[in-house]
Amino acid sequence: MSTPYSIGIDFGGTSVKLARVLPDGTIAARASFATAGLDGVDGWLAAVADTLSTLCPGGLDDPDFAAVGVGVPGFVDFDRGFVHDLTNVPGWTAVPLADRLSALLHRPAVVENDVNAMTAGECAAGAGRAYRHAIFLTLGTGVGGGVLINGTLYRGAHSMAGEIGHVSIDMNGISSPMGRGGVEQYVGNRRLVERALAAIDAGRPSSILALANNDRAAVTPKTISRAAAAGDPLALEIFDFAADCLATMMASCAYLLQPEAFIVGGGVSAAGPILFDPLKKHLSERLTPYFYSRLQIVPAALGNDAGMIGCGLLALRKADILPD
Amino acid sequence: MSTPYSIGIDFGGTSVKLARVLPDGTIAARASFATAGLDGVDGWLAAVADTLSTLCPGGLDDPDFAAVGVGVPGFVDFDRGFVHDLTNVPGWTAVPLADRLSALLHRPAVVENDVNAMTAGECAAGAGRAYRHAIFLTLGTGVGGGVLINGTLYRGAHSMAGEIGHVSIDMNGISSPMGRGGVEQYVGNRRLVERALAAIDAGRPSSILALANNDRAAVTPKTISRAAAAGDPLALEIFDFAADCLATMMASCAYLLQPEAFIVGGGVSAAGPILFDPLKKHLSERLTPYFYSRLQIVPAALGNDAGMIGCGLLALRKADILPD
Repeated sequence: MSTPYSIGIDFGGTSVKLARVLPDGTIAARASFATAGLDGVDGWLAAVADTLSTLCPGGLDDPDFAAVGVGVPGFVDFDRGFVHDLTNVPGWTAVPLADRLSALLHRPAVVENDVNAMTAGECAAGAGRAYRHAIFLTLGTGVGGGVLINGTLYRGAHSMAGEIGHVSIDMNGISSPMGRGGVEQYVGNRRLVERALAAIDAGRPSSILALANNDRAAVTPKTISRAAAAGDPLALEIFDFAADCLATMMASCAYLLQPEAFIVGGGVSAAGPILFDPLKKHLSERLTPYFYSRLQIVPAALGNDAGMIGCGLLALRKADILPD
Repeated sequence: MSTPYSIGIDFGGTSVKLARVLPDGTIAARASFATAGLDGVDGWLAAVADTLSTLCPGGLDDPDFAAVGVGVPGFVDFDRGFVHDLTNVPGWTAVPLADRLSALLHRPAVVENDVNAMTAGECAAGAGRAYRHAIFLTLGTGVGGGVLINGTLYRGAHSMAGEIGHVSIDMNGISSPMGRGGVEQYVGNRRLVERALAAIDAGRPSSILALANNDRAAVTPKTISRAAAAGDPLALEIFDFAADCLATMMASCAYLLQPEAFIVGGGVSAAGPILFDPLKKHLSERLTPYFYSRLQIVPAALGNDAGMIGCGLLALRKADILPD
């Protein structure tokens, strides 16, 4: 018996990753191509079609190929499948991407913001399966978020809810085009590295630089987490600070929405207890026991596959293979 | 032809206000009694029954009397109609209030947090009628909030969503049992008055004290708003500060949920443009144009009736007179 599937696409600034996604949220096969060098939207669509001709067992005409979903790094209107603008990919402004994909592949198509796609994946098939009310966050260059309400991804009035990286933790804090004191201005990857290097420059002893072979440019949050795991006081202090910044933002979100859980993913979350232990400690200080005791803090489970799986499942819903 | 109605009850720390609420959200008649001097829950229920015997045209057996709803100043479990605790009313801990009311009045009963009740009222019959996604805030002793999502009051995982007074605007700010930097620690009524008096004590010239007949204890936010309306620089500065604190919290909420509107009620909001003009200015600085241009900031419309109307309408939904 054949099983319908969708293609979930994670459109990143560096590479485009594609997966054959089954209705249970598992990945049956995968492929990828580089983002650079493609000739705009047309080139991107041609590369997708080319890749799918081998990724789908029966080629582009495979009757089990039910739908396609794309997660993109930027602003989209989910209802219209419309890409407003991709922050780091030139030439992608005002693209009716779902329509273009449907016309090319003759199947239903959905387009979602990349972090919303990850949220959909984690909440349907990952760490969020048990919850109907949850907030997903991903820690990386910035801090992205997604909101699950009554078991459904919540997009807000115009598809842009979940921008938790801009939640302010200091009304007089660091300015950005998004306002003042946004949490990602403090805990984005580059900010954590800058903080470590500034302390080292100021004379703080630390093993961080040695772990990066004394190459300042090679220091990453992973370097800092390795130093922290080995007990380096400066590295531990930086993770404690990052955790407290995140806890401030998470406490605000919890007071507003009272989710059952926060699901924490992204590179920095790979630090494990180095991040999660101080995160829980600070959150318990920043919430009343009534809220804190009813809140779970759990690591994401799907890693880099969350976006492809989420898009794939959203596409299967669009094709009525899965219920809404 | 007879019209079914409900009784909406606003249970305040000073008085209990009752209204006969029609399905269109209008009030047909009202009554009240003092909160003080009642003998606990039993005394409160007896006073309610006594008042309803005249507030309902056909008395307690009136066939048009369909349901009853109460808004209470504290923590409730809406699904169970259960009062966990009322902050400022002794003797109200762990009360199955909806069950008690149903047993007494032989009708469906609902119990809701007072600010959620106001949100339900404003969103169904007041300033929020046009919106499906909105955040209500009420400015008074503290800052209360309610969240409307997809046209429905959102209560979170355990009936406690909407506690926007505890959203932090400064991770290193004023501590309270609810965490650090909660916005109500800066813009609650008492805080605004303290801020004015401290500036006057430090030698700032101002007409505020004179407007209170030089009685420090008589200074209220209303005194400050009167001074501001007359151009008093200190009073204007205090409203500008309050507006910026609120804008910080509102920007965080907007980035998380992207509502269509904020509906602003409560005593301080009566200052009108003295509050709303700087509020809009600061919010425009704290949000990207994409968010700010799609956001309405509107004053609440129902004043002190919002809670009674909201409870009345929630009760009519419970009785299936109105759709959910």
